[in-house]
Amino acid sequence: MYKIVLIRHGESQWNMENRFTGWVDVDLSDKGREEARKGGQALKKEGYVFDVAHTSVLKRAIHTLWTVLDEMDLAWIPVHRSWRLNERHYGALAGLNKSETAAKHGEEQVKIWRRSFDIPPPALEPSDSRHPAFDPRYAGLDPRVLPATESLKTTIDRVLPYWHDVLVPTIRSGKRVLIAAHGNSLRALVKYLDDIADDEIVALNIPTAVPLVYELDANLRPIKKGGQYLADPDELKKLMDAVANQGKAK
Amino acid sequence: MYKIVLIRHGESQWNMENRFTGWVDVDLSDKGREEARKGGQALKKEGYVFDVAHTSVLKRAIHTLWTVLDEMDLAWIPVHRSWRLNERHYGALAGLNKSETAAKHGEEQVKIWRRSFDIPPPALEPSDSRHPAFDPRYAGLDPRVLPATESLKTTIDRVLPYWHDVLVPTIRSGKRVLIAAHGNSLRALVKYLDDIADDEIVALNIPTAVPLVYELDANLRPIKKGGQYLADPDELKKLMDAVANQGKAK
Repeated sequence: MYKIVLIRHGESQWNMENRFTGWVDVDLSDKGREEARKGGQALKKEGYVFDVAHTSVLKRAIHTLWTVLDEMDLAWIPVHRSWRLNERHYGALAGLNKSETAAKHGEEQVKIWRRSFDIPPPALEPSDSRHPAFDPRYAGLDPRVLPATESLKTTIDRVLPYWHDVLVPTIRSGKRVLIAAHGNSLRALVKYLDDIADDEIVALNIPTAVPLVYELDANLRPIKKGGQYLADPDELKKLMDAVANQGKAK
Repeated sequence: MYKIVLIRHGESQWNMENRFTGWVDVDLSDKGREEARKGGQALKKEGYVFDVAHTSVLKRAIHTLWTVLDEMDLAWIPVHRSWRLNERHYGALAGLNKSETAAKHGEEQVKIWRRSFDIPPPALEPSDSRHPAFDPRYAGLDPRVLPATESLKTTIDRVLPYWHDVLVPTIRSGKRVLIAAHGNSLRALVKYLDDIADDEIVALNIPTAVPLVYELDANLRPIKKGGQYLADPDELKKLMDAVANQGKAK
């Protein structure tokens, strides 16, 4: 009936350095750009075409999208950027090295912050220069809507209005939609689409830059739970293990 | 009162090969990408910021814009693409080498096609695979609006509705607008803004990837006719001479 494709950005410079990123606007690493190229090539090879693309206001997702569109010769399609597709905001952890944080607060506490459903990391102070209120890209928003930290739960609450108000009408209009976003904003969509329980979604790891295809029925429910990754199964397992291991202290 | 910036795309692969391009979707050359980077750096150096950008549906303009935005760390601003900002359609000349065309039809005839105000090159046949009706990016448009050739005059007729209906309201809303487009779609805007006569606009050459700044009064009339290029004057003269020489047979 309908088909949408989700793609998580390629490796960023801070993924590589194992630092909490969230809303910090870190670029792709060279490896991340290469991953994005491969993602675009996989889509092209399978004959995918899109009418419109949606992404966050963070350059690691935007650059992933641009690279995918270039590989597909679709740089000309409309692209919509929204803060609602941003990564989960990591609060006061933003910029900290994950291993250092694990050494300081304990691996268990880091795991709670990373993997609990509704416990957010410590919030940024309103005066903290990392607070979104100081970032021009959010200047048009009511400051009260800007997070100083987010759990996966509050991330989902922030992402889903974009699904209902922007993506659903677009998909229903027959447009073929590509969504380039982040580990947790995509988790929000996957949890909603597949109706995954709170305690299960935290263990679901979306590999970087592998197109995830959902075929949807007339009610926009997935025809196959979990969708379908456009990747070789062995390659896919390796990628998913890599994502799962990021939280461990080194 | 208001300030807008126009930027022509950097050198394309076919500029380099001296071929008529028009609506053919040719990419930037390495030199063109470097020109775009310099254009972005000049804007950044002078402290420019934009709230929104507009471009064509052709990748040489889109990639110029992406490069400029990256240099300014503004990849997150909204970007609107429109066929109305496309280059002039060169009809049946599209893809031909300018020197070969000059050798075949005579340099004078080529000059007429390139530099007359209202004489278009021969039109594409409706069955010609180069006709825009076969290009998916125009599939949403009424085929009767798609050009099979254009003079500068008909290009202007096609560009100006975008100025009046999209750009003017955006500028009046206080948004700082960047427009990345093509030699002739930018000529259309400059002709209108500066009220340049038909026989004078054909001699006006806009250099590639040099930001052209217009300050506009409350009626959106330029405060200084011709605007202001962000470039060293000697460098600018060299660039303009290079553009003027493109039509000569080699």
